[in-house]
Amino acid sequence: MSERVTRKGKNQVQKEEPKQTKKQKVQKESYDVGQLQDIAHQLRIHSIEMTIASNSGHPTSCASMAEIMGVLFFTKAGMHYNPKDPGNFGNDRFVLSKGHAAPILYAAWSMAGYIDQKELLNLRKIDSLLEGHPVPKLPFVDVATGSLGQGLSVAGGMAYSSKYLDKINNRYWVLMGDGEIAEGSVWEAAHLASHYKLDNITAIVDVNRLGQSEETSIGHDINVYKKRWEAFGWKTIVIDGHNLNQLTDAFEQCRNVKNQPQVIIAKTFKGKYLEMENKEDWHGKPVPQAQVDFVKKQMKQQGGFTLTPEVPVQIEKPQQSHFTLDVNYGPDAKQSTREAYGKALVGLSKTDANQQIVAVDGDTKNSTFSIKYKEAVPTNFVECFIAEQNMVGWAQGFSCRGKVAFASTFAAFFARGFDQIRMGGVSGSQVKYVGSHAGVSIGEDGPSQMGLEDIAMFRTIPNCVVLYPSDGVSAERAIELVANQKSACYVRMSRPSLPILYKNDDVFQIGKSKILKQNNDDKILLIGGGVTTHEIFKAAKQLSEQDNIHVTVLDLFSVKPIDHDGILNAANNTALKTILVVEDHYQEGGLYEAVSSSLSLNNEIKIHSIHVDKVAKSGTPAQMLSLYHLDAAGIIAKVKSIIQ
Amino acid sequence: MSERVTRKGKNQVQKEEPKQTKKQKVQKESYDVGQLQDIAHQLRIHSIEMTIASNSGHPTSCASMAEIMGVLFFTKAGMHYNPKDPGNFGNDRFVLSKGHAAPILYAAWSMAGYIDQKELLNLRKIDSLLEGHPVPKLPFVDVATGSLGQGLSVAGGMAYSSKYLDKINNRYWVLMGDGEIAEGSVWEAAHLASHYKLDNITAIVDVNRLGQSEETSIGHDINVYKKRWEAFGWKTIVIDGHNLNQLTDAFEQCRNVKNQPQVIIAKTFKGKYLEMENKEDWHGKPVPQAQVDFVKKQMKQQGGFTLTPEVPVQIEKPQQSHFTLDVNYGPDAKQSTREAYGKALVGLSKTDANQQIVAVDGDTKNSTFSIKYKEAVPTNFVECFIAEQNMVGWAQGFSCRGKVAFASTFAAFFARGFDQIRMGGVSGSQVKYVGSHAGVSIGEDGPSQMGLEDIAMFRTIPNCVVLYPSDGVSAERAIELVANQKSACYVRMSRPSLPILYKNDDVFQIGKSKILKQNNDDKILLIGGGVTTHEIFKAAKQLSEQDNIHVTVLDLFSVKPIDHDGILNAANNTALKTILVVEDHYQEGGLYEAVSSSLSLNNEIKIHSIHVDKVAKSGTPAQMLSLYHLDAAGIIAKVKSIIQ
Repeated sequence: MSERVTRKGKNQVQKEEPKQTKKQKVQKESYDVGQLQDIAHQLRIHSIEMTIASNSGHPTSCASMAEIMGVLFFTKAGMHYNPKDPGNFGNDRFVLSKGHAAPILYAAWSMAGYIDQKELLNLRKIDSLLEGHPVPKLPFVDVATGSLGQGLSVAGGMAYSSKYLDKINNRYWVLMGDGEIAEGSVWEAAHLASHYKLDNITAIVDVNRLGQSEETSIGHDINVYKKRWEAFGWKTIVIDGHNLNQLTDAFEQCRNVKNQPQVIIAKTFKGKYLEMENKEDWHGKPVPQAQVDFVKKQMKQQGGFTLTPEVPVQIEKPQQSHFTLDVNYGPDAKQSTREAYGKALVGLSKTDANQQIVAVDGDTKNSTFSIKYKEAVPTNFVECFIAEQNMVGWAQGFSCRGKVAFASTFAAFFARGFDQIRMGGVSGSQVKYVGSHAGVSIGEDGPSQMGLEDIAMFRTIPNCVVLYPSDGVSAERAIELVANQKSACYVRMSRPSLPILYKNDDVFQIGKSKILKQNNDDKILLIGGGVTTHEIFKAAKQLSEQDNIHVTVLDLFSVKPIDHDGILNAANNTALKTILVVEDHYQEGGLYEAVSSSLSLNNEIKIHSIHVDKVAKSGTPAQMLSLYHLDAAGIIAKVKSIIQ
Repeated sequence: MSERVTRKGKNQVQKEEPKQTKKQKVQKESYDVGQLQDIAHQLRIHSIEMTIASNSGHPTSCASMAEIMGVLFFTKAGMHYNPKDPGNFGNDRFVLSKGHAAPILYAAWSMAGYIDQKELLNLRKIDSLLEGHPVPKLPFVDVATGSLGQGLSVAGGMAYSSKYLDKINNRYWVLMGDGEIAEGSVWEAAHLASHYKLDNITAIVDVNRLGQSEETSIGHDINVYKKRWEAFGWKTIVIDGHNLNQLTDAFEQCRNVKNQPQVIIAKTFKGKYLEMENKEDWHGKPVPQAQVDFVKKQMKQQGGFTLTPEVPVQIEKPQQSHFTLDVNYGPDAKQSTREAYGKALVGLSKTDANQQIVAVDGDTKNSTFSIKYKEAVPTNFVECFIAEQNMVGWAQGFSCRGKVAFASTFAAFFARGFDQIRMGGVSGSQVKYVGSHAGVSIGEDGPSQMGLEDIAMFRTIPNCVVLYPSDGVSAERAIELVANQKSACYVRMSRPSLPILYKNDDVFQIGKSKILKQNNDDKILLIGGGVTTHEIFKAAKQLSEQDNIHVTVLDLFSVKPIDHDGILNAANNTALKTILVVEDHYQEGGLYEAVSSSLSLNNEIKIHSIHVDKVAKSGTPAQMLSLYHLDAAGIIAKVKSIIQ
């Protein structure tokens, strides 16, 4: 009934070694092409039925990639994985970058035996894990997709980890739509993967020609894709994406490429084998039930499929270490918090027996001081160059592979990766983001380099811890805390060199602020963070000495979660039940709004604000602080105006 | 004293026509190469002296591009501009994408006669416009740069405007560093410029090999750049970037290319002609004063430069029209606010005699309904495909050319362009961003597609208006308001079809909320926006009818600026002096925090919140609203718990 062709042999997975250092060679193998075609059709049928059941979804986007999925999941040229254990750390991993094709992903895992077939019809239902776009609640999904053009970056970090750090001989398969190739993040990812010679990544571009609202800008001009990927250093194979022989050949070729990532440019048709094949206006819509029969008629056998994947060795995901740090500053030390970051990473590395800490940076390592970690543990530092979206994706990829991933750049430039950070929030990614050069206190470089919205941005990420240390001690403790924290974290670092405020053994906690000065006769509570902690401290001293006005000084430290009780108690202890928040950040979403939000059910406390209230400019750090009234003089004036 | 070479002729700028439709031809011209070299050296000297004076800045990054700047500013092959009138709309425009080389930009405008030479030494000083990175306070700067990889996108929008809309025969010159070529946004921009055949853009890549913290990933492997730009459809010319003959030749070649953007890959050396030429660790640092003499010794003449640019015709920047709109809904109409967006743009076009409104979208036009504008005014709609960073940059480019630029995509995907939006804030860009599919109320597609942090993001942009309409009438009025507003604006649109709440002639204002229900015996104030306005309205009705509990219903509409007085008065009129804010957004930076922030000096009012409090999932819109207690039932329960 089904055509048979001879392929290049049985896959020699080395099952005896838990960690393989040599690449497996693909040799002769026969594929039952007829059965494979029927599997592809069955994947189509599932995708149609699932989206009819959910009355939404993208069946035509699934139909263009059904043959690709068949070969990926059901031949030894494709993924090597244990269908019974999708979480096996030794499995090849699949990233569906075109996340809207989720139905066919679920269908494939169902046909592989992992998902109950009945569950497929619960697609997009509130009590099902089979969401509209894949999320890592499912063990075969590493990273949430659905915002296009992000999958390749995450796969890059994972592949680097397997190849260079864990030395696990698994592979990463990334399926992309053609529309998403317009996203620049794809080219950032393509560049870095070839730069680091990641031969364990295969990208497959499903060139089905049609985007959401019209033909893609490149259409079926396949040669354009070929030239671009080749120019970016990838082994590039162009095939008919519905031809199973070409597909299996291409996959096998990819398995044998050394020191170069590979891309398969698969010319396909949206809605292939349906009546709406290659037609516009069928994006993101269920198709009529009759299409099931239409596909069925094209099948040779209707079931009893026997093709199975190659199963690799079982590897356990490593447990994360607990890290501790010795902090050691003399009382007269001065240091920027950004420099403390580098020091802290080096310090942490001393308790990192399994070298789990990985740091990435975007060509700012001599400014963020992640360079210190590079110097100390060169294997575990990865330069990602000036491409922050991809840097964030790589960090997420490292995190997927059990690493404690730190990503650093200027606070301002994390805005470049906000969509990736947002999607990391959907994934529950545990990356530790460290932003230097926060605020106007950087001075002369001017507003393009000043992070003034970074706290607002990171506060929106669900479960993301946001810390804002004020000196070397608290900065190192912040890095120690986030290294051990099982969630996304952001630590905001400042450029200026600042005196030490804390003792080396002072205890810092996520969710706790620190009181630096408090007396019984304090009039109001001053709250600062980073550089403004020093300014409120200076202001408090002057107010006390020169004007006999006493104020409480609170260093916020933990912006999210915020120390509601600590702030409330401190405010309640002041005579005027008044807070003044001073921040080197825009008002929106920053420290003041975090405090206001936290206390909005309290109707006794007034909250004032000093913040950066307009677009900044160049000047010295001191001039900048003065211009926005963030310095001691501005704070003193404000306190006096409040008290009067 | 100076070498003379013969070039291809005198530039025939057609001065008699205000708007030129034919491209000028460059013919024979002689350049005094010796003088040009001396000009380049003088630009170096200025850059050195300026950064010594400011004790910060990037002289070596200037030195690599001094010959490029000489040819650009002082030959007829380069920019055609009026040095006395940098704002002339008919000038060629220069975008310094590597904004950290600002000193040499200022030096060039000084040598061209526009900036007083003494002013150069005020670089980076607080009272000078010569900031560390260029900002459009200077009339020769269209867009703030300094976050790398953004210049080409803005130039793309400007060039499209000149070529296809204004039919002005000027050109756009974009100077990029090699490090920034790693940014994906560059490839988004490169793709779209070639897609739209923008022959009036020339990019120059200053391949000086050295990034900030190490060699770039490509170094001096010039052929890699060549292949990539060619693959992206650009006419690609490789030259020695310090060879003035090659530079002038290349510029002239570019002027004659038809229907294709051009890139000059200029191999250069960082710190060229200084003692630190091609050496690492000299990024972003002033060099010793002795370098001035070092360069001077290499000059043939020390002044008396006579080279001048070609001066184009004078063209006035068009004044912006005032737009008005007829809104026309029947009382039983139902419509999504996103659909109202498309309707409103079409409506506005009727009072847009000069066709100033330009709409861009990222292949979501059938979801955002910007497709309606495309259908009505096809010349002024530009599909930017799935590349949101570049789409934002193009919109800013249109705005620079006096257009009223609307950019639309899913609210969630504006996160992809946050850094561009942030830089637009620095520029004072007036783009109108319209985000559809906000919140969990989109339903089945799941969290990747739900904008839940968009308000937080746009609120951080200085002077950015944020509106959140709740029905067709208010949505159309919001679009009318922002079309006439001289600042950046964000309008948040929702997916579900919703009943009409307002009369066609109800007046909406930026900074004003709307009260939908109010009585003397109201217990508390409910505040909503978009879909939640409908839910609080339903809840209020039920509470009144079933429980005899009366509440005020306020539709926030204007999130920024917020209606402080309106909210305060409405809250003060309630018995419990209590507000409940209900929002389809994360708490951080959203409606609740905007309200809390606005009222934090009031110590009588309590503010409660219902918001999306965890990562969302797939489900029906109604289930999603219910899951987060954003529906009438959840609101009623919360009101009762507050009242008890």
